[in-house]
Amino acid sequence: MSPIRIALVGIGKIARDQHVPAIAGHDGLELVATCSRHASLDGVRSFKDFGEMLRDVPEIDAVSLCTPPTARQAFALEAFEAGKHVILEKPPAATLAELEPLVAKAKQANRTLFATWHSRFADGVRPAREWLADARIERVTVNWKEDVRHWHPGQDWIWEPGGLGVFDPGINALSIVTAILPRPIHLTKGELSFPANRATPIAASLRFADVTGVPVEAEFDWRQTGPQSWDIEVVADKGRLTLSNGGALLRVDGKTVLEGRDREYPGIYAHFTELAASNRSDVDLAPLTLVADAFMLGRRNTVEAFD
Amino acid sequence: MSPIRIALVGIGKIARDQHVPAIAGHDGLELVATCSRHASLDGVRSFKDFGEMLRDVPEIDAVSLCTPPTARQAFALEAFEAGKHVILEKPPAATLAELEPLVAKAKQANRTLFATWHSRFADGVRPAREWLADARIERVTVNWKEDVRHWHPGQDWIWEPGGLGVFDPGINALSIVTAILPRPIHLTKGELSFPANRATPIAASLRFADVTGVPVEAEFDWRQTGPQSWDIEVVADKGRLTLSNGGALLRVDGKTVLEGRDREYPGIYAHFTELAASNRSDVDLAPLTLVADAFMLGRRNTVEAFD
Repeated sequence: MSPIRIALVGIGKIARDQHVPAIAGHDGLELVATCSRHASLDGVRSFKDFGEMLRDVPEIDAVSLCTPPTARQAFALEAFEAGKHVILEKPPAATLAELEPLVAKAKQANRTLFATWHSRFADGVRPAREWLADARIERVTVNWKEDVRHWHPGQDWIWEPGGLGVFDPGINALSIVTAILPRPIHLTKGELSFPANRATPIAASLRFADVTGVPVEAEFDWRQTGPQSWDIEVVADKGRLTLSNGGALLRVDGKTVLEGRDREYPGIYAHFTELAASNRSDVDLAPLTLVADAFMLGRRNTVEAFD
Repeated sequence: MSPIRIALVGIGKIARDQHVPAIAGHDGLELVATCSRHASLDGVRSFKDFGEMLRDVPEIDAVSLCTPPTARQAFALEAFEAGKHVILEKPPAATLAELEPLVAKAKQANRTLFATWHSRFADGVRPAREWLADARIERVTVNWKEDVRHWHPGQDWIWEPGGLGVFDPGINALSIVTAILPRPIHLTKGELSFPANRATPIAASLRFADVTGVPVEAEFDWRQTGPQSWDIEVVADKGRLTLSNGGALLRVDGKTVLEGRDREYPGIYAHFTELAASNRSDVDLAPLTLVADAFMLGRRNTVEAFD
């Protein structure tokens, strides 16, 4: 079978660090073009204009959108119109409302729309979901705390509207929580801390509940220096499950069950090839819905300016 | 056919002013109970506890939830569990995430869930939708400006998280816009003005676009004294349509086409009886989605304190 020919759109850090090697490492995929206003990749045909790329490289089968989440809708609609599959880096869009027309268009075009959540492909996520499926869950605690200066040096867009602030990493935690818990959750109370000079929050303290009332507490903080925390703990009748290192390390009652390697993006592209084989879509808006709810229902505090 | 027996939950201003007379005015409906912590209605069995009401008045067919939007999920789930239909006053919930489990539960229980948007039952809405169905729309302008001191005297909850602030009236405008336009819209840019001493916005300036790029501008303001504005204008190839007085007055090119009476809530309950006759649901989350998107993507300004 000939490989699926992919065009990468938006050549920034995430495209270079993750998408390029993941595509290169999969036999069923081939990177055939890039589209970016300022960047290109050696040995790959590069374009600045999306429409021009689709016209000049008609053999493209799928476009993978790694641009900032604002203004992806037009690219995706144009891609479906041209009969391509579409992969969306997380978060899938700057607004929830943009996504429904994309889901409808993918269906109409009989092509795949894959709204990716890379953290869901961490090695511990699937076994955690299976372990929890028959558990009586008592409470869930999420600590997602990192040093924004280390992970996002000089990236001003994260502080602009649409950049989501601390929800940019926090949505990864929510993508795991919504994947491993057997029932949907919703926000009951939240506090968002906005630096005095910034448009997005640097920290969030959130209380969720599932439909049976099980409490889920989440603390997101971008001011954590020293050791970084990407931990989810679930206390259940059958024991205490912890997912650490962003989902790669799974322990039950303190005992290591699985210590995975980082292969989230290879997992994304492997899943994409399965979806594309039968033109199926995979679009779960739950993580972005919880974030929008947090902005809507959360109380805002102003904290120290961030420079 | 025997009437549908309704229990009203949350006996405040909106229940007394609108729901009670609308139910009384419909031959197919009968008000048989109320549930409220502090209030009751003369001549109607009243309860403080929701579960007790369902047990003591088993003939209830439907519950109409007029409580504040936070914490309705538990009532609705319990009602479906007991085989009742559920009507939700707008906004249907404090978060989007609460609603999906309700939709699923209604389906499982084979009962009606009706998330109401009263402004959609204003007399001009249906003819406006029909007039726009074959129009080439150029732009849409919404002005929804009223005096919060006049309309919400002493109602502190509107300034608390979940109270939505100026989006409490603004969501009525969005419920009309999303009903009359032929294509979905999404936010591209927004500014929200928060009084220095309040948790919800007093004004919002929003830019939307539909999937073809048609611009929709909306100005919501709660500081309007003097004449109040609840106006939507659509400029199209075939003329200029204006909906005023919250949807009751329809004009085309300045000429009055229809001047309706206020019968929004009778319209809600008439539609409910049709839905309940075949256990169908009517849940459109578009207006609340646009509001959540505005909180997520909108830039926040701090303005003068509101007392």
